[in-house]
Amino acid sequence: MAKRSNFYPVILAGGRGTRFWPLSRKRRAKQLLPLDGKQSMIQQTVDRLLPLASAQRLWVITNDDLQGAIARQLPRLKRTQILAEPVGRNTAPAIGLAAFVLLRMDPSAILGLFPSDHVIGDEKRYRETIARGVALAAMGENIVVLGIRPTRPETGYGYIEAGAQLDSNAWRVRRFTEKPDLHKANDFLAAGNYYWNSGMFLWSARTLANALREHLPKTASLLEQIAAAYGTRKFEATFQKLYPKCENISIDYAVLEPRSAKDEGAANIFCLPADFGWNDLGSWTALHEHHVAKQKTSDANILGGDGNFTLDATGNYVHAPGKFVAAVGVRDLVVVETEDALLITTRERAQDVGKIVKYLDEKKLAKLT
Amino acid sequence: MAKRSNFYPVILAGGRGTRFWPLSRKRRAKQLLPLDGKQSMIQQTVDRLLPLASAQRLWVITNDDLQGAIARQLPRLKRTQILAEPVGRNTAPAIGLAAFVLLRMDPSAILGLFPSDHVIGDEKRYRETIARGVALAAMGENIVVLGIRPTRPETGYGYIEAGAQLDSNAWRVRRFTEKPDLHKANDFLAAGNYYWNSGMFLWSARTLANALREHLPKTASLLEQIAAAYGTRKFEATFQKLYPKCENISIDYAVLEPRSAKDEGAANIFCLPADFGWNDLGSWTALHEHHVAKQKTSDANILGGDGNFTLDATGNYVHAPGKFVAAVGVRDLVVVETEDALLITTRERAQDVGKIVKYLDEKKLAKLT
Repeated sequence: MAKRSNFYPVILAGGRGTRFWPLSRKRRAKQLLPLDGKQSMIQQTVDRLLPLASAQRLWVITNDDLQGAIARQLPRLKRTQILAEPVGRNTAPAIGLAAFVLLRMDPSAILGLFPSDHVIGDEKRYRETIARGVALAAMGENIVVLGIRPTRPETGYGYIEAGAQLDSNAWRVRRFTEKPDLHKANDFLAAGNYYWNSGMFLWSARTLANALREHLPKTASLLEQIAAAYGTRKFEATFQKLYPKCENISIDYAVLEPRSAKDEGAANIFCLPADFGWNDLGSWTALHEHHVAKQKTSDANILGGDGNFTLDATGNYVHAPGKFVAAVGVRDLVVVETEDALLITTRERAQDVGKIVKYLDEKKLAKLT
Repeated sequence: MAKRSNFYPVILAGGRGTRFWPLSRKRRAKQLLPLDGKQSMIQQTVDRLLPLASAQRLWVITNDDLQGAIARQLPRLKRTQILAEPVGRNTAPAIGLAAFVLLRMDPSAILGLFPSDHVIGDEKRYRETIARGVALAAMGENIVVLGIRPTRPETGYGYIEAGAQLDSNAWRVRRFTEKPDLHKANDFLAAGNYYWNSGMFLWSARTLANALREHLPKTASLLEQIAAAYGTRKFEATFQKLYPKCENISIDYAVLEPRSAKDEGAANIFCLPADFGWNDLGSWTALHEHHVAKQKTSDANILGGDGNFTLDATGNYVHAPGKFVAAVGVRDLVVVETEDALLITTRERAQDVGKIVKYLDEKKLAKLT
């Protein structure tokens, strides 16, 4: 895979990932955790992309809480490549800012938008798909989204409805949909032409800038002012002052959904179906399943500790580094311990872990969040 | 309660208490743990007895692994009051050795045999009962056992069958029984004249010495030789050499059962029923119940940590000192963590915790046992 000199991956790393509490914290969010190996999720994201774009063309957009830790984890990136939003404004202003900055530096720039906390099983196919998408995005005003072939009627994701076929593995997008209910999700799964919205997009800086000028003119103007200050001494002050005035809106909602709704043919939005072992690791349960699938254990126990003993124990996920773990007569539990906290829940209830963080926020137990 | 100058409590503290793993270890056995407060079980045992016998008349019999830690926990006792058996030989040689030594020091000595790891709810009544038992044991050749009024058909204890009534709260013992099956235990409970064998006995040194000479003549002779060396420079060597030759047998099995079986009237064994909130804390489950009863929690969670959050969680016991504990959607679990180990089990399966220690012993994972 050849590097493309005009491909700029923009990695979004501002999320908090509260469902991985107590491991995830404000200053050590999910993307900074080595949930799937020795490297953190964001390190893996960067390493996956480096064969496609050299380090100086990578961008990370995050927040103040995480900027320092991300810079330490990604020593190949300069500080100016890691932008910390003064306040979170969702994906449209974040990717938009990158577009306006890059447009001034390289009018032929192709941007890729990448979440920083997903796992990819087949990196070769992942890069092939992206390379293909970059080529497609470089033509005209095309917008490319990577779609994940759904394997279950998931209600936690948005879906992409594919329309006319462009070639053997690319479809025009007919429609972006919000997260469906279970009934709808089942319909989507049965229909066969629906894909999960992976949050990975490819488009030229010019296309993106124009789209924002059209759909979010006020925000686009603010972002252009910030971009004009990039590289000058006034940048930080301008960023701090103007960015909070941007609309708080996702790129899907601001641009993709209205554009796809308008006219399928004219929208020039394409979906590349992706089969590269994608997993967004949405909870401890998802992480457990990911490890069980990888390790093919017979008892489905994933006991992350220093040695273990099990007796009549199945389906448990335990994170207790450095400790001998003994599990007797328990099933489908999630137990995670850190230096200052111990989480005990079940695989079924792991999606409620965010409620613990909400409680800790409310009680201002900041040390634990 | 006046101190009796001839009452010598002998505290048995050689047990390992593997069912409290990972908190209990070879060198930090159950009796050394503060399972019911700030003081350890053996410290509480000693403190309970001090109003009845001054510190210099207390004896502790333990083993090499625990002697140092016990001495540190009981600074009022001299090293010579804390005997470490070269090898464990069960209760008959242990209490027998104390009897032969004390007989030489104080021919009027009354010995009390006390486990070191039980909790007592009503200490005043406990001491009243013991004082009464000491008085009874001082008469003739009487042997006194404290019996616990059974509250459930427990199959883990031996039972005492009471016979003729001596006075308002003392019965002659008709029979000592082994641990019964559930059917028998239910019968015992229904009969009303059965008591749990508490392991607490009172008798004069002379009576005990004579009983051992009669029932265990070989062991008695060895113990007399060891006792003769007590206080001399030869003691340690003699103890090390002769004690392992003693029979490995409990005092119940060696003396009490055969004697009670022989002839109820002649045996002079008396049972004092005891209602002083006794609990032998046999497992994490028993400890959980003990704390729930004391604290009257509505959700029956006992979460030993530094703060906690629960959501749909009931009946859990968690030991995680210094940690914030979050329990979501779990019930009846036992989770105990130490610096090097994490136990996850259920209240129902907590009696199997000893199997973990057995495994660790087999695997020679000595650091964890």
